[in-house]
Amino acid sequence: MALIVQKFGGTSVANPERIKNVAMRVAKHHGQGDHIVVVVSAMSGVTDNLIQMARELMPLPSEREMDMLLATGEQTTIALTAMALHAMNVPAISMTGPQAGIVTDGVHTKARIKNITPKQIHALLNEGRVVIVAGFQGQTMEGQITTLGRGGSDLTAIALAAALKADLCQIYTDVDGVYTADPRLVPGARKLAEISYDEMLELAGLGAKVMQSRSVEFAKKFGVIFEVRSSLNDNPGTIVKEETPSMEDVVIRGVSLDKNQAKITLVAVPDRPGVAACIFKAIAEASINVDMIVQNISHNAASPATDLSFTVDKPDLLKAKKIIDGLKDKIGFREVIADEKIGKLSIVGVGMRSHPGVAAKMFETLADAGVNINMISTSEIKVSVIVDLARGEQAMRLVHQAFLGKVG
Amino acid sequence: MALIVQKFGGTSVANPERIKNVAMRVAKHHGQGDHIVVVVSAMSGVTDNLIQMARELMPLPSEREMDMLLATGEQTTIALTAMALHAMNVPAISMTGPQAGIVTDGVHTKARIKNITPKQIHALLNEGRVVIVAGFQGQTMEGQITTLGRGGSDLTAIALAAALKADLCQIYTDVDGVYTADPRLVPGARKLAEISYDEMLELAGLGAKVMQSRSVEFAKKFGVIFEVRSSLNDNPGTIVKEETPSMEDVVIRGVSLDKNQAKITLVAVPDRPGVAACIFKAIAEASINVDMIVQNISHNAASPATDLSFTVDKPDLLKAKKIIDGLKDKIGFREVIADEKIGKLSIVGVGMRSHPGVAAKMFETLADAGVNINMISTSEIKVSVIVDLARGEQAMRLVHQAFLGKVG
Repeated sequence: MALIVQKFGGTSVANPERIKNVAMRVAKHHGQGDHIVVVVSAMSGVTDNLIQMARELMPLPSEREMDMLLATGEQTTIALTAMALHAMNVPAISMTGPQAGIVTDGVHTKARIKNITPKQIHALLNEGRVVIVAGFQGQTMEGQITTLGRGGSDLTAIALAAALKADLCQIYTDVDGVYTADPRLVPGARKLAEISYDEMLELAGLGAKVMQSRSVEFAKKFGVIFEVRSSLNDNPGTIVKEETPSMEDVVIRGVSLDKNQAKITLVAVPDRPGVAACIFKAIAEASINVDMIVQNISHNAASPATDLSFTVDKPDLLKAKKIIDGLKDKIGFREVIADEKIGKLSIVGVGMRSHPGVAAKMFETLADAGVNINMISTSEIKVSVIVDLARGEQAMRLVHQAFLGKVG
Repeated sequence: MALIVQKFGGTSVANPERIKNVAMRVAKHHGQGDHIVVVVSAMSGVTDNLIQMARELMPLPSEREMDMLLATGEQTTIALTAMALHAMNVPAISMTGPQAGIVTDGVHTKARIKNITPKQIHALLNEGRVVIVAGFQGQTMEGQITTLGRGGSDLTAIALAAALKADLCQIYTDVDGVYTADPRLVPGARKLAEISYDEMLELAGLGAKVMQSRSVEFAKKFGVIFEVRSSLNDNPGTIVKEETPSMEDVVIRGVSLDKNQAKITLVAVPDRPGVAACIFKAIAEASINVDMIVQNISHNAASPATDLSFTVDKPDLLKAKKIIDGLKDKIGFREVIADEKIGKLSIVGVGMRSHPGVAAKMFETLADAGVNINMISTSEIKVSVIVDLARGEQAMRLVHQAFLGKVG
């Protein structure tokens, strides 16, 4: 008898018919005597629809009220999933994030899980029930409803797996696992049998749509081995776990393209100490994640000024620009340019550490195709470049072909 | 400075545009320095859509899960209403029923309010905020989410008005007030300036769609004077309050047609003591309200048997029939007939007490038009008859014409 946490994303629960399919899969495991905790997202389209209505009322709605609004999406799914299981005579009970004991901090729309008290879930599992928990949500100690941000349902699943000491955590999605690149964009992409947390982390952080980095970080921190697999078939998925020595034999594990970034450039920023600190402190205080930062040296010694660029998640662009605009008098730059038409192309692999020349090969591949590189950022196991959005997918295919086109 | 509770129903908040209209009205009162608590329902159509999805999964979904599901409707509206007020620079904050301190018993889908702890609402009002509370919902002491059943948002508003000792409780709806009959069905219907709790209670219980009886009962019990008025204009509405002597001068206050009843008939029930008790105890234990009951005397002395008919709310019909089917072996009736094609036509007025012959005039009016009467039920201030649904609206117009067609 195993304790399994199974997470189903929005497309897997998009309508009552698909919820029935999820219920059948859960019922099968439950019938084998396993203890099952199911975590579900909002039905595909529901969250977007809610955001759309909010935007009709205000361009930048209060984050507390956004959480109040969006938390309804997962609550709808848990109730319907419980009903689908009841229809198959499986005892099941739904729980909102707050009911499941998921306590977060008070950073609305991006809350962090502070602790989980799974006592009640254990009791319900011991009664033989399937427990269905709303992903993406929690509440503060004071009873305010919070949401965990993008990919929050994965985080709920992995955090529950850790808190419950689950034997297995399965992340069901609409793809068969983690691929060397998005198979919808790159025809030669292949499914990986396994991948290290660090590689997954880089891919997640780089726009591979399978998972958000926070969830992978959480899994790494608590040693939760999880499997990314399809809700549409019984194919084995991709196991995400600690790095093993043999993983370094492969130079590049995958290629990703992140279209969800936007670039902000401050033109002619006075080149004096404390400017960068001032900017990024204000951005951080608004809980906006900054990804890449590039600052050029100043050329004019008499009146030293430089251009400063950084990238943020597209949904944060308006908010970030507003904050920067507010600093204009204090800092004294000339203007702010916001650019949504960018893509971040990345290659990832722990093998990079033992195979030199990887970045050079990537740049050469792009240069040969006439793709201009705007920004560059590297880490021990990845290289990322910012390119024009219009060239992004083509560039991705070329780089995939160069590194992963032929095996061996 | 007054404390006003304003309740807006589903059609008043049906889309972001209408929510803006609600917000403008609330903002106007708030701008006059009043303390405002707003209670909102689910956006029109949302609840039906959720019920539809639930039915696709199961004909009789678990009531606990129905509450989990339906409570999302009002939660969506409170968040959007808060945003609409923020967009007008009005400080506003949303609260779910549980957050507003609305504690209920554990009868899912039909919970009763046990108590309200409005301490936090008072504190927020004193900060100058508009407090927007989700109607229709609460939670048990154990943290289970409950809903209050049909008309639950009115109940929330009136219960909050009582708990907060509000100066005024306004029930905004899509009609101008309480009419002598449904103006959509009866062309000559007129708006009433005032009506007694008891008359309103009868009308509410009889299918006049303005309000459910539970809310009026609650208002009567706690002496909450409230006004039913339109959210589409500034016309004065109908004040609902304790009976005054002058109210008896009018024979009939209104005529109503309830299409939401269904009739169950047990054919050939053995005529022995305890049978009715057995049936209605089982029905009551399932928290199904029975309205009219008619039992005929037995004609056959050798094997005494009778037909027993009663009416329930249409949504309870399946459940009620299932319960009766389960009693077949125990009681030994011949068959059960369920009939949804009925309408309950009623006349109501405290003046009935001092004006004899009212029932006879109603029966005569129907007889003249060839409308058959299936069941009759009377009280001190009302007469109700069950007629074929197909003849209901015509019958209503005739009876309205007979009693209220001409003034004076």
